[in-house]
Amino acid sequence: MSVSEIESKNLHWSPWRRKLYKIIFEHDTPAGKAFDVVLLWVILLSVLIVMLESVSFIKDRYGNVLRIMEWCFTILFTIEYILRIVVIDRTVRYIFSFYGIIDFLSVIPTYLSIVFVGGQYLLVIRTIRLLRVFRILKLVRYTGEGRLLMNALFASRYKIIVFFGAVMITVIICGTVMYLIEGEENGFSSIPRSVYWAIVTLTTVGYGDIAPQTVIGQALASFIMLMGYAIIAVPTGIVTAEISQANRKRPTPKKCPKCQLDLHDIDAQYCKRCGTML
Amino acid sequence: MSVSEIESKNLHWSPWRRKLYKIIFEHDTPAGKAFDVVLLWVILLSVLIVMLESVSFIKDRYGNVLRIMEWCFTILFTIEYILRIVVIDRTVRYIFSFYGIIDFLSVIPTYLSIVFVGGQYLLVIRTIRLLRVFRILKLVRYTGEGRLLMNALFASRYKIIVFFGAVMITVIICGTVMYLIEGEENGFSSIPRSVYWAIVTLTTVGYGDIAPQTVIGQALASFIMLMGYAIIAVPTGIVTAEISQANRKRPTPKKCPKCQLDLHDIDAQYCKRCGTML
Amino acid sequence: MSVSEIESKNLHWSPWRRKLYKIIFEHDTPAGKAFDVVLLWVILLSVLIVMLESVSFIKDRYGNVLRIMEWCFTILFTIEYILRIVVIDRTVRYIFSFYGIIDFLSVIPTYLSIVFVGGQYLLVIRTIRLLRVFRILKLVRYTGEGRLLMNALFASRYKIIVFFGAVMITVIICGTVMYLIEGEENGFSSIPRSVYWAIVTLTTVGYGDIAPQTVIGQALASFIMLMGYAIIAVPTGIVTAEISQANRKRPTPKKCPKCQLDLHDIDAQYCKRCGTML
Amino acid sequence: MSVSEIESKNLHWSPWRRKLYKIIFEHDTPAGKAFDVVLLWVILLSVLIVMLESVSFIKDRYGNVLRIMEWCFTILFTIEYILRIVVIDRTVRYIFSFYGIIDFLSVIPTYLSIVFVGGQYLLVIRTIRLLRVFRILKLVRYTGEGRLLMNALFASRYKIIVFFGAVMITVIICGTVMYLIEGEENGFSSIPRSVYWAIVTLTTVGYGDIAPQTVIGQALASFIMLMGYAIIAVPTGIVTAEISQANRKRPTPKKCPKCQLDLHDIDAQYCKRCGTML
Repeated sequence: MSVSEIESKNLHWSPWRRKLYKIIFEHDTPAGKAFDVVLLWVILLSVLIVMLESVSFIKDRYGNVLRIMEWCFTILFTIEYILRIVVIDRTVRYIFSFYGIIDFLSVIPTYLSIVFVGGQYLLVIRTIRLLRVFRILKLVRYTGEGRLLMNALFASRYKIIVFFGAVMITVIICGTVMYLIEGEENGFSSIPRSVYWAIVTLTTVGYGDIAPQTVIGQALASFIMLMGYAIIAVPTGIVTAEISQANRKRPTPKKCPKCQLDLHDIDAQYCKRCGTML
Repeated sequence: MSVSEIESKNLHWSPWRRKLYKIIFEHDTPAGKAFDVVLLWVILLSVLIVMLESVSFIKDRYGNVLRIMEWCFTILFTIEYILRIVVIDRTVRYIFSFYGIIDFLSVIPTYLSIVFVGGQYLLVIRTIRLLRVFRILKLVRYTGEGRLLMNALFASRYKIIVFFGAVMITVIICGTVMYLIEGEENGFSSIPRSVYWAIVTLTTVGYGDIAPQTVIGQALASFIMLMGYAIIAVPTGIVTAEISQANRKRPTPKKCPKCQLDLHDIDAQYCKRCGTML
Repeated sequence: MSVSEIESKNLHWSPWRRKLYKIIFEHDTPAGKAFDVVLLWVILLSVLIVMLESVSFIKDRYGNVLRIMEWCFTILFTIEYILRIVVIDRTVRYIFSFYGIIDFLSVIPTYLSIVFVGGQYLLVIRTIRLLRVFRILKLVRYTGEGRLLMNALFASRYKIIVFFGAVMITVIICGTVMYLIEGEENGFSSIPRSVYWAIVTLTTVGYGDIAPQTVIGQALASFIMLMGYAIIAVPTGIVTAEISQANRKRPTPKKCPKCQLDLHDIDAQYCKRCGTML
Repeated sequence: MSVSEIESKNLHWSPWRRKLYKIIFEHDTPAGKAFDVVLLWVILLSVLIVMLESVSFIKDRYGNVLRIMEWCFTILFTIEYILRIVVIDRTVRYIFSFYGIIDFLSVIPTYLSIVFVGGQYLLVIRTIRLLRVFRILKLVRYTGEGRLLMNALFASRYKIIVFFGAVMITVIICGTVMYLIEGEENGFSSIPRSVYWAIVTLTTVGYGDIAPQTVIGQALASFIMLMGYAIIAVPTGIVTAEISQANRKRPTPKKCPKCQLDLHDIDAQYCKRCGTML
């Protein structure tokens, strides 16, 4: 946010521009907060409409209403997009930033759907609007919790990569063996398809669209299932250990001035080991 | 329970009323305990009858027996409801309290089923009686454990909300992409239905009523499954860390002699709030 | 094992009886160990034969071989059973003990199958032999680990009961609501069946033999799945916390004689805080 | 790696042999690193081709291209295999080592497929090449994380064996009971098949190819599911506790200056093995 902090101090801006900037880009004024809340609901509503439009019987009945609402939302988002471009100083940087591209992709499909006929596939891109929710959420109090989770996941990224590497190799070898055992007549028609089955089984999803029929195949499948049952413990263990550590570490700006113990609870006022005031 | 404590001291009550109050609302007398146990079994039995009544071949054979038992239970619960209203002082407050409404909803469907024909749907509301079990359980020793669990879940509520927000956004985007890839001919007939499929897959339920048929669809599905396999680690990690912390705080025969705080660590030698030696 | 310890000192026993007792009931002599290992394999083999006998095409071909082997095992187990009764002093106490009854149920079905025709169902009871494995395993080194696990589960029994109580109530209410929403035409033909579906869904098993068809039903099902996804965290959290604690507690017969710290690792030889030899 | 360290010091080697040795067997020179990266990609690509070859419509179209690429890879791997044999001193020891056998099995099927007609099954053995990835990965930084995971799993091996023993016995007994309850007409045609179903259910995979139809069967199945839901907590708890402990031990910039032990707790001030101040 350092960029916006600098820009808000641009004293050569006209008052209305600075005000607009505060509403759109900042979040600590009442107007800025209201803007965020309204934008959040408009985004969620517009995504709901994209979803409803894909249901054929709703589209048949309320197609026109949905189309009108969609255009309202698109115009609203377009105005917002233009305002963002106009207000900000580093326009080019914004346009090619992550959220700049998402903002653009959120409005363009509706316009393109006039030009291209049968642009049904284009319209679905609008679901990408959902990602804009993150920009707003970034600012509320849930960020602290989100960052804690992200940190825990990030701290264990090597372990998770190693784990997934091992899972992928297991799954490819198991899939190949099952392809040999079961063969095409039981639905294991190719190695990639067998690997897909192995993933479905190992993750305990178990659709049942492909299922082993031979005795040996079922025995191997049982083995894969029990393995999947056991190794789900590994990512859980990794993440739990990290979150535990993150939780434990957090509350220690406090250090005992006498005995130097620094593992105090958040609400501790005296050192639990030597009784010195913190 | 502060209300009941006050009311039980109402000395202007007649002796039989005070006795009745103690049986129905209190739980530390032998009569009160017996009342609770009987009520618990009557509730469970009446719910069992509601369930059995829905099985057509049981209804055909034992329909009359079940109907008679149902009326017995309803009359019992009605008497209990009237007694509660009569005995308590703050009648209106009870009637519109959570348990007051549940008590009412537990008896009314049976009476309404005489008035309205085909009130099968009304009868099912009686399952709500099950919630009355909580009132009785509230008082036994399992409450301490229940509270510990609730505290652990409550302490991690923001993390859980953030987690579910992220899951919902993931599921909507994955569902939309699968709707594009697989299309109506493979069962992904609308975005909401695809999102339903994505939830079925991510949570590793995997009914198999909708399953990807195209190669790209299966590849994306594999990715979602592995992701679901990994992110189940997150809520587990969150809750485990909280329960660990709650457990660690619990072992407190240590109670501060000065400020009465009883949430000390096992190795604490001084009260963390007031510094008194333990 | 206090009973057996006392009995082995029965000096009035004849030498062969004492020897036999040591082989059958004790496990620290070479003969006793050999007896245990042989018995373990005979039990596993006899259970395997019961399982193979149920496969129709194996029974058709090798039926006679299996029947002969079965009789060999039965006679072996009968001899063992008689020896146990003869050798031990407190015969009645043994016969009606847990393992005494299992020993009896392990041999009786084969004899009964001569008397009663079509006693196929009786024969399956022989699988109960598997439980005899526990008696042998009780003595090897895995017991320590097993006891640690059992202790962890036992310590968290109230939390687990509270958890399952909550799960059962959730499942009954969800099942009832789904029975109302989906109805008989979609396979939710009775409340018990709907509750069965709710359990299949909540535990993320997801057979797919019953699956919601209506939009509202699928929405509620999604909710149940996400809930199941989240609450699986609860038992995991409970057990993990207990095992962590059990692990941490185990290695502390060591206490520092100088600073009284008692949280040392198993392999620690010097106090980690003050350097005193333990 | 002690063997390779010794061999690299073989001063009687010719310079080109020593250089080749460094490229193929060592990993800290630029040439050695480049060799590893190229080999990694070639292995992954060759496995991808084996997988694609099994898809019938790809084989029909691009069969010739795939066959040519396969031969290129095989020749590459053969050259590599011969070089390894030539360069290393202890040739026999390498040939019969784990990776020596895998290297051999990686190239031989392609040659055999010329000799034997219809050697489709032989070709699939080539997937074993995937295992060669581990040799390369063994050397990068992910090894530390991998070893941490392996250590955590290894430390809890007895607990995991006990757990799986209990799961197997549960599954066999449940499977037998279900075989009695449901019988052949509902798909539980033999005890092994019922045990397979019990594993599918307990691990929450739930294909749905076999599903209980009777009321009692569904009740028992519900019980197994809930049990599976609960006992998945056990391996997770075991592994989590071990990883937590491993994490806690890891932060060791502290190394004992006397005995070189580097597994101290974060708060340790004295070496737990020899008592030296850290």
